[in-house]
Order: sequence, then structure tokens, then C-alpha cells
Amino acid sequence: MVDTASRTTAKQSHARERSAETTTPKQTRTAASAPAPVANRDRDLTGANGSRVDIAALGRQLLGTWADIRIAARKRAANPELQRIDGQSMEEHRERVLGQLKLLVGDGAVHRAFPSSLGGHDDHGGNIAGFEELVLADPSLQIKAGVQWGLFGAAVLHLGTEYHHTTFLPDIMSLKVPGAFAMTETGHGSDVAAIGTTATYDEAKQQFVINTPFRGAWKDYLGNAAVHGTAAVVFAQLITKGVNHGVHAFYVPLRNTKGGFLKGIGGEDDGLKGGLNGIDNGRLHFTNVRVPRANLLNRYGSVAEDGTYSSPIASPGRRFFTMLGTLVQGRVSLDGAATNAAAMALAIAITYGNQRRQFNAGSDTDEEVLLDYQRHQRRLLPKLATTYAQIFAHDEFLVKFDAVFSGESDTDDDRQDLETMAAALKPLSTWHALETLQEAREASGGAGFLAENRMVGLRQDLDIYVTFEGDNNVLLQLVAKRLLTDYSKQFAKAGAGVMARYVVQQTADRAYHGTGLRRVAQTIADFGSTARSVTSLRDENTQRELLTDRVEEMIAEIAGRLREARKLPKAEAAAVFNRNQNELIEAARAHAELLQWEAFTRGLANTSDPGTKQVLTWMRDLFGLGLLEKHLAWYLIHGRLSPQRAQAVSAYIDRLVERLRPHAQDLVDAFGYAPEHLRAKIASGAEQQRQDEARAYYAAQRAAGTLPVPEKSKK
Amino acid sequence: MVDTASRTTAKQSHARERSAETTTPKQTRTAASAPAPVANRDRDLTGANGSRVDIAALGRQLLGTWADIRIAARKRAANPELQRIDGQSMEEHRERVLGQLKLLVGDGAVHRAFPSSLGGHDDHGGNIAGFEELVLADPSLQIKAGVQWGLFGAAVLHLGTEYHHTTFLPDIMSLKVPGAFAMTETGHGSDVAAIGTTATYDEAKQQFVINTPFRGAWKDYLGNAAVHGTAAVVFAQLITKGVNHGVHAFYVPLRNTKGGFLKGIGGEDDGLKGGLNGIDNGRLHFTNVRVPRANLLNRYGSVAEDGTYSSPIASPGRRFFTMLGTLVQGRVSLDGAATNAAAMALAIAITYGNQRRQFNAGSDTDEEVLLDYQRHQRRLLPKLATTYAQIFAHDEFLVKFDAVFSGESDTDDDRQDLETMAAALKPLSTWHALETLQEAREASGGAGFLAENRMVGLRQDLDIYVTFEGDNNVLLQLVAKRLLTDYSKQFAKAGAGVMARYVVQQTADRAYHGTGLRRVAQTIADFGSTARSVTSLRDENTQRELLTDRVEEMIAEIAGRLREARKLPKAEAAAVFNRNQNELIEAARAHAELLQWEAFTRGLANTSDPGTKQVLTWMRDLFGLGLLEKHLAWYLIHGRLSPQRAQAVSAYIDRLVERLRPHAQDLVDAFGYAPEHLRAKIASGAEQQRQDEARAYYAAQRAAGTLPVPEKSKK
Repeated sequence: MVDTASRTTAKQSHARERSAETTTPKQTRTAASAPAPVANRDRDLTGANGSRVDIAALGRQLLGTWADIRIAARKRAANPELQRIDGQSMEEHRERVLGQLKLLVGDGAVHRAFPSSLGGHDDHGGNIAGFEELVLADPSLQIKAGVQWGLFGAAVLHLGTEYHHTTFLPDIMSLKVPGAFAMTETGHGSDVAAIGTTATYDEAKQQFVINTPFRGAWKDYLGNAAVHGTAAVVFAQLITKGVNHGVHAFYVPLRNTKGGFLKGIGGEDDGLKGGLNGIDNGRLHFTNVRVPRANLLNRYGSVAEDGTYSSPIASPGRRFFTMLGTLVQGRVSLDGAATNAAAMALAIAITYGNQRRQFNAGSDTDEEVLLDYQRHQRRLLPKLATTYAQIFAHDEFLVKFDAVFSGESDTDDDRQDLETMAAALKPLSTWHALETLQEAREASGGAGFLAENRMVGLRQDLDIYVTFEGDNNVLLQLVAKRLLTDYSKQFAKAGAGVMARYVVQQTADRAYHGTGLRRVAQTIADFGSTARSVTSLRDENTQRELLTDRVEEMIAEIAGRLREARKLPKAEAAAVFNRNQNELIEAARAHAELLQWEAFTRGLANTSDPGTKQVLTWMRDLFGLGLLEKHLAWYLIHGRLSPQRAQAVSAYIDRLVERLRPHAQDLVDAFGYAPEHLRAKIASGAEQQRQDEARAYYAAQRAAGTLPVPEKSKK
Repeated sequence: MVDTASRTTAKQSHARERSAETTTPKQTRTAASAPAPVANRDRDLTGANGSRVDIAALGRQLLGTWADIRIAARKRAANPELQRIDGQSMEEHRERVLGQLKLLVGDGAVHRAFPSSLGGHDDHGGNIAGFEELVLADPSLQIKAGVQWGLFGAAVLHLGTEYHHTTFLPDIMSLKVPGAFAMTETGHGSDVAAIGTTATYDEAKQQFVINTPFRGAWKDYLGNAAVHGTAAVVFAQLITKGVNHGVHAFYVPLRNTKGGFLKGIGGEDDGLKGGLNGIDNGRLHFTNVRVPRANLLNRYGSVAEDGTYSSPIASPGRRFFTMLGTLVQGRVSLDGAATNAAAMALAIAITYGNQRRQFNAGSDTDEEVLLDYQRHQRRLLPKLATTYAQIFAHDEFLVKFDAVFSGESDTDDDRQDLETMAAALKPLSTWHALETLQEAREASGGAGFLAENRMVGLRQDLDIYVTFEGDNNVLLQLVAKRLLTDYSKQFAKAGAGVMARYVVQQTADRAYHGTGLRRVAQTIADFGSTARSVTSLRDENTQRELLTDRVEEMIAEIAGRLREARKLPKAEAAAVFNRNQNELIEAARAHAELLQWEAFTRGLANTSDPGTKQVLTWMRDLFGLGLLEKHLAWYLIHGRLSPQRAQAVSAYIDRLVERLRPHAQDLVDAFGYAPEHLRAKIASGAEQQRQDEARAYYAAQRAAGTLPVPEKSKK
């Protein structure tokens, strides 16, 4: 009974969006002529200043550079055959996802990044864009596809050469050979350089001998390793002529046609996980397993027949980071997929929050819609603003990635910038996805905890995104080190004179801020004038200046403290660095937040419809001021904001959420998810129907005079 | 292989704790004489000032008022028969937990709160203490037991009278009648007063007619409703003689002996949830279902044969809250269980963080132990301090609960205080459990995501704790309303003169703080003296004053803004209230944090061993300063802390985590969990063994001169 009702209302509630679709070819939805009965829809249409979002145009903008590919991928993700079935056992789920990978192959959906010569399209950005949308169907499908083609296949493509491409790629692309990406070990996750597995060259037999010297060097957490993988790209320390040339990748067959391990190979199933149970993660170990010399993926390092090592990159450190850098696409795609998941959660919770009523605060008869409560707005709308910032930042990130990988703009600096961007954006977006999924589930109460409403399942699957493909904290520390390097380079170029002046200036600056003198002046200027404070905070340049200033000041402060440590012995220098680690990571976060804010602001500049631009400006301000509010103590301590202005930050956020509230439904509708993507009963319109039925019941009783009199009013 | 190793090392790693146990009868562990080989154990024993924790004594203190009952309950929870098996299907898990409830009955473990006359012990505090420990075995077991005896049974006990006790309780206690607590409806969760189900008295037949008037009034999310429940306590609007007397509870049989619904009753399975899948939550609806007049649980409201309603409580509002107040024990037990779960997560992650090594920052050969990284300390130790605060606060809470329910101290004020405490503490501890489980899982990397390491499963189960038994945000709003009432009562008593003076004073105060004059003075006084700032922040009274001041000031400010709203029409008054909702909830949180800080401080006063007292003082300071750091912007804006002192807060927290780091293992060992409770492979000692093996391998190669030379050093 409920199901039928849900379906009907769901169709209707998306009607308005669909009518806008005559301009965008989203073939997943069918035409409908009924007007949209979504609660508060009427009120939604007229915001403050009469501004109104052009949902269709905004939707197109959000789809970004590879809009067509995303639309096609979403059409695919709407296919129930590719979607998760809740409650399947781990074994059933694993087999289902393997079958889904085969459907993707049949569909020609996963070869876009491979060379044209092998049937691909050499389209790196488009490949990732399409791949990210698989999260709408099932994150296990996304990640297992990522293991097969984005890691296993991509390693052969980017670390191998012609021989490997022609020999191995066709079967990888067709899924004839499902494979594992055997990098991580039980003992080493993010610290890949320290893995224990060795590949020692045997000149006599012209083979590499792959060996696991101890338990901690078992390969671990590898998708496809527990059951389906018949080969792997194995990362190991390449040893020849008694010299360790560092981590290299080798193509290693794992299992025979019956699924049994080949000689010298063993392993274990990682078993049940917190999520992503459609992937067969497992452990592998190697006891003197021999592979031909040619199985070294030798783009960045070769071993001649006689065991002589050679590499186009002289520095072992740079070589290592270059090899790892070719695998940055994993981080790129997680940023996009995590942002998609956050957007879905908000589309579900805001749709529900616009229909669900609870407690009658302002009326004797009608209860309030959840999203009319300030707290509810405060819980969801800032997260919506962050999601928008991430969407804009991600598209720029993907454009950058495409430029590097297509060779269009592929200098060392480009690659470094790309990696820094990846290390900055992936942590923020994956954490944001978890926080948003959780807040959305809590904002939907007990209903949010039911699997049928999607949020708990998505959260379980996305949990691991914050520690895989580089632990978020480790990545942010990389960003901070890059910022410190940039900072010191600035002075290396400038010479000692500039440095000395800078130090003086820093000190002067410290005294100035530290004793709060500038702040006092600001306080007096601001006195009694909240309006002026707000006007200034709304200003784009003020926001930029405040956000930029914080990154620079944090890095400058830390650099100052680390400067003396350079002369210390290694252990003591490490201790000084360690005492600044927490703040370093916070500085990296500040940098990443600034990247997102800049991208949002550029996106805003590209928005032409005036109503949409107005609403998006409020969203950008909400994002920017949200960052200021989060770090308000820093701004106060460093004299960048007077107490008066600081108070205006929170007050203005309150005003912004009130202004944005009528546009909330439009802003999530612009994500363009169809009911087949959200698949959440509470976002189907069923709640609206229940509310209407309950209100009609009481109204009819009241009209007929049959409603029992409350005891209280009787007295 | 790993399993055997894990078990051995697990035994050993708990040896030291066990040796301390000669004084505490925790029978779950066996004697051992080997010294503890836990990593860094040696360093752990000597903290700054040579202070050292007396683990056994601290462990006893943490067990609190009902230590013996907790120890017995933990012994029970160590029984594999009561523990969760990961990967079971929902159906299997449900049947397993039902079987476990029967084991508890056989064990005499669940009747403590029931009357002695029926075989119970009239022991309310002890009952909850034991119940909370069930979370160690399986949260589904805890909550299903809670549904049967803490909700269904407790409703009959507290809302019913003699007839109901003798008629229904024996079968409830024995589990002959598994039952549902049918309060929540699809349309109404936390707003119980607004439920739609009606119970209309039919004088002719002397029966109540239970009816579900529309879909939103279906009972929903009820444990035992989907499969096992054969009866329910149903909450419905009691209507007699055309008057609605508000929500009352009725005993209603649900199913026949074959498991089929009785006439007029229907329902649905809620299906898979985000966690707690050992409980069969479901929906129920009633179509004019008749029950005898005597089935009204009539302690607080009776209907005579002729339909005349009577109640010992004249006010319908007070009657409603009194009835609901008898069910406060759910919130009490969630506070304790959530704190247990946070403690388990920290015991796992800190043990692992003390053994796991990653990256070699300060040495060429050895990698760093995770817990030696500042960021790692910053992530886990403040959460440990909060967990300690919660343990102390919970014991006081439970003592209060026991005093009220035993009748020892059961005035209206006592009940109100108890409910406010429940509404304040339950939200903070349940949110803290989720945050801690997540941080602990992330701090354990990919290993934290494996089901075998417990944290993801616990987090999935505890997720719902933040919205059931009262949504956390709704509860905090209740606390805030109570604070506002207390605040206005203060002035009602004092009369108009005091009020006027207060307003003047408030205004003066605002100007004083608002323009930062006091802060400027403080800045100058503090100038250059971080040491003095720190000394003052370490002072107990300073912390108390700062925390108390914030609650009072926030409430005073909000009360000031709401004062004018009183005269407005209802809708407008509601709008003004709504504009302050977010800050109101934050004020309630501040109040709850103060309660926890006060309890921690009282606990500290009861600690006699000097070493333990020193370490616990650092922990309390870490908790207190953590609160200041979280709300630092408020203290700066309101002129309570100068920028100089504010900066000292974070600096001192950095020093505290460094000081506490050597005691981290002791502090989690004091929780007293045995390996049978933690059941996490990464906390079993297996990691230490892997690290030792890897280091021994490299050391041996180095000694033998067979370690391949790194390419870098060769150049």
C-alpha cells in the first residue's frame, strides 16, 4: 500500500524538474504534465528579493565539464541490475558486483581512459566523471570497478610499457583477468616506501623472485584478492646486484583456472567489513614466487638481462613519487564520488525535512515543517553550501587532472600541483560526506536509520574513503609540507636581506596582533555598527583576504618555529616537527578550504541567471562565513576580527540560512537525481501523503464537530 | 596462525592488569605470572613527575557504586553464547538474540528492578548498571532486553497497578510473553503528546476500542513488533464521554500462539536497519481492536465503569510528563552503555596505537609508534578525557536515578532534576560514542574498518542511540527550557525591583564585554606572561568559573531576547523563539558539559593515590581546557579570556597530551576490559608480534650484512 503511494507521489514530486528537462537529455525520466505537489513548493518559488533559482540551468552548471558523460552514467546507474540489494550476504553481494562489472564491460562503460589503439578513448577526465557516478548505484560497484580498471589496469597502463599494454591490457579491460592492486601491506598502509615485500632479480634465470619476508609484509586489504583475482600488480622493493632500487610494480599471476592459488602464493579473506562488502578484499603472501624479467612494469625503471638497473629518473625519491603520482586518479575519483554521496544525502534529508511535520509551536492545529526550525536549517544548509563548494572545486580538479594526463599541460609543476590538490581536496570531501550522511540520517530521525532510506548504507560504504587511497591526515600533512617548501623557496629566491626584513615584519606583526592593538582600534570603529560589520563580511574580497591571510599566517608561524630545528640532530628535529604536527595539519585544511572557496567564487562568476546568482551568492557567503565561524577563535586571537565583527559572523549566518531556506528544495533538486537514484522512501513523497491524510482527518473531524474535546480546554 | 598468536599475546598483554586483580574479583580472567610485553610499557610506568597510575585502584573507582553488579555482568558478557556473530543474516541474528534473552532469564540476570513479591529485587540502580554492561556482548542484546524488561515490562510496572503486576508481569519477566512498547508512530517520534492512535471507551461493553485513524498513526520502529511480540503496551489518546484525556497506556494482546495477528491488528517489518539488526523492529496498526477496561494501565488515570475519568494528577500536562517520567531509565541506561562503547573503542585504538609503527621520522631504522605522533595524541586523548568525565557523571546520574525510583528521595523536584540530567547527559554521551568510535576506527586505519576489530559494528549499532529515547536535539531543547524557567523563577521570586536592576546590570555588562574593555585590561595584564596564563587556567576554580559563567550568560542573553516575545501572538512568539533555537541548544550543551566537568572534579576529589590523582588531574584539566578550546570564540567575544590567555589554552592542551601520553595505556587498562570483551584482533597483541618480527628480520639482515644497500646511499 505504502509502496504504491510512494511511487505515485515520487513521480509527481519530480515533475517540475522534469519539465525543465526539455533542454537536458536526462533519459532516465519520463514526461509528466501534473504540477508538483511538494510541500512548500509555492513558498519555495519566492525567496527574499523575489530571487528564484533556475533549477535546470543550475543543474547543467553543476554537472560540469563532462556533463554528457555524467548524464549517460546516471542513466546507467538507474538500472536496478547495477544497484545494491540491501540485506544480501557478503558472498551474494560479492558475486552480484562481479556480475555488474561484466555488465559495465558489455556496456562499453569502463574503457574510456585506455589507449585508442586498444579500444579505449584516451579520455582521462571523462573516464573519471563517469566512474564517479557509479556511486549512485552501489559504492561497492564503484570501488570494485576502480580496483579493476582504475588501479590494476591503470598500473599496467601507466607503469608498464608497450609489451605490457599489448600483452595484459586486453584481458584486463574485458575482465577476462580480474586483478588485485597489491600495494598495501598489513604493516604498511600510507607509508608505501617502507613495504617489506621484495623482488630480487635472479640473473641466471632472468626472473624476479617475489618474496614476503615476514607476516607484516603480507599484502592486505586488496580488492579482488580474496576470491576473484587471477593476477595482480604487486609492489615490491626491487633488488638487483645487492642494491635496493626502491618500490617497483610487477605483473604476477595469482590463481589457476579453477581458482586455486599458484605455487608459492597463499592468502586469506579479510572477511566482513564496515561497508563495501560487495568487494572481496583479501590478503596475499608470496614465497619465492618467480616471474619473468619482462613482468617488471618498466616505464620508470628497467633491469637488463645482466641485472643492471636503469631509470629515466635519476633520483630514487623523485622516481618513487613519479610512479605513485600516476595513480592519483583514485584520489580524484573519491573526491567526486564523496561529493555525490553528500549531495544525495542532502537531497533525501531536505526533501523529507520539507514534508515532515513535528510539534506545533506557532499554531494550535498545524505542526511545523522540520525545515522551518532554525536548528534544522543550521544543521543542513551549511552542509549544502559546502557540497556546492566541493562540486565546483571538483570540476576544476578534474580539468587539471585531464590536462596532466592527456599531456596537454604535463610539466613537473603541473603534476605537483595536481597531487597537492588531490591531497588537499580528498580529505575534506570524504570527511564531509561522512558528516553529511550522518547529519542527514539524524535529521531524518528513526526513519533515517532504516536501510530503505539509503543513508546508513551509504555511510557504511563511504567510511573507508577517509583512510584509503592515502589516510586523510597523512595527505593533509603532505599538503602542509608542500606549503612549507613553497614558503621557504620564496625566501631562497629573495635572498637574505628579504628574509631579515620578513622576520622583523613577522615580529612586528606578532606584537601588533598579539597584544590586540589592531583589534582594539577595530572594536572602536565597529562600535554599535553591526550593519557595517555585516556589509564588510559579505564582501567577496574581505572573505578572500581573511581566508588567505589565515593560511599564510599559520604557515609563516610554523615555519618560524621549525627554522631553528633544521640545525638539530635528526631525532630532535623530528620532535620539534612533531610538536607542530597538529597545527600543520590544520594549516593544510585551511589551504584546502580556501581552494574550495575560490572555486565556488569562480563558479559564481560563471552563473548568468540573476535569481540563481543571488541565491548562489548567499550560498557562497554561507560557505565562507561558515569557515570564519569555525575558526573564529583564530581570527580573534590574531586580531583579524574584532569581537563585534566576530559576533556579526554568526548573526549573519543565521540570516543567511533564513534567506536560503525557501530555496533549499530547488538547490537539492538542481543536483538532478531521479527517484531511481535516491531510492529513499522518505524522499518519495510518501511522507507528504501521510501528512496530508492526517491533516485532512483532523480537519474533517473538526468540521463535523466530532473531534473529542481536550481535557485541558474543557476546564 | 594469526589467531593463535593473537590469543597468546592478548593473554600476556593483560597480565599486568590481572596481577593487580588479586584485589578485585574479576573472574573472567585467569592468573598469569609473565610480565606484560605491551609496547612502551616500560615508558608508560614513569610519567612526568614520576607519577604513575594505580590501575587496579582506578579501575575500582571507575566501576562506581554498583561495582559488584558490573563485574558479574561483565563476566556474563564474556560468554560467547551472548555475543554477536558478525555476518549473520538479519533473520539469524534476530533468532539468536531472542535465544540470548532466554539465557538471561535462566541466569536471573534481568529481574533486579521488579518487585520482590514477584521475584525481583526492587533494585533500580543495580538493574541499570548490569543492563548497561550487556553492550559488551552485543548492543542488539542490550536493546532487545531493554525493550522487553526496561520498556514493555517497566511500563506495566510503573504505569500499571496491582492487577496488572500480578496478571501480566510474571509472563513478561519469564519471557513467556515477549512484548512491544508501542509508543512511537510513523508520524510522531519525540512528540509523543501528538500521537494519533485513539482508545475510546465503550460504556456498553466496558471496553476500550483501540484504533489507528490514518497511516501516520501506525505504531513504528517497535522492537519485538515484527516477529516475536505476542502483546504490547500501546499508547493512545484516551477518549471517554467525548473528552480526550491525553496519552495513556493499554495492555493489548497482539498475536495468537501460532504467531498470527489477532483480529483487527496488522503490521509490517521495518526490515534492515543501519545496525541493531538482532532486533525485530516493526510497525503495527489497529482497526477497532477491543480490550477490557481493566487493560488500561491506570496508575495515573482511571476510567470507571460508567466512563467517568479520574486521575491523581489534576493537570493533564503534568500527568503526561509524570507518566513519561517513569520511563526515564531508558535514557539513563543509554548514557551508560554509550560511555562503555566509547571506552571500548579507546581501549582498542590506544592499545593498537601503542604497538603499531608507521614512518620513520626521527630515526633511520625504527618507525614511530602511532601514539607518539602529536596528531594521534590530539585525536584520541581528549576523547579519553571526555570518556572519563562521562563515567563519573554517569555514576552520579545513576545514584540520583536510584534515589528517585527507590523512593528514597522522590519529590517533584527530584524527578524534574533527574529528567533534566537525563536530557542533558544522554545527548552528549551518545554523540560522543559515535565520534569516538569513528575517530578510533580512523586512527586504526584500514584495520579499523574490518569487522573483526569491532569498531565499525559498534558504531553501526550505536548510531540510533542519538535519536531514540528522545532525539538528542529535542532533549537538549528541553534542558534549555528548564534553564530558562529556572532563570525566570529567580526573578519572579525576587520581584520587579531586582529585575530592573538586573537588566541595567546586564546592559552594563554587555557594553563592558561587548566593546572588549575588560579584555583590553586583561591583555595588558597578561602581556608576555604565558606562564601566568597557564597557571590560572590550571586552577580548578578558574575552570569552574569560566564554564559556569558561559551557561549563565548564554541563558541570560537568550532570556533577554525572549522577554519581549511573551506579549506577542502565538505565531510571532514562536518565530522569535525559533530565531534563538540554535543558541538555546548550545546553551543546554554548555550546561551538560558543566555537569560532566563537575562530576569529574568530584571524582578527582575521591581519588586517594597521589600518582593516580596527578594523572587524573591532568585528564580533568584536559577535559576542562578542551571545552574552553571548543568554545574559545565565545570566551574571546564575551571578554572572558584575553587573546593571550586564549592562546595559552591550546598551548597547554598540547602540553597536557604530551604529559598524558605515557599513561595512555594505563588509563584504558583501568577500564578493566578483558580480551573476551574487546575481541579486537588489533588489540590482541598480534600487531606487537608483527612489529617485533619485522624489526628482528631487518636487524638480523643488518647484522649479517645481507640487507640490500639502498640505491640512494650507494651514490
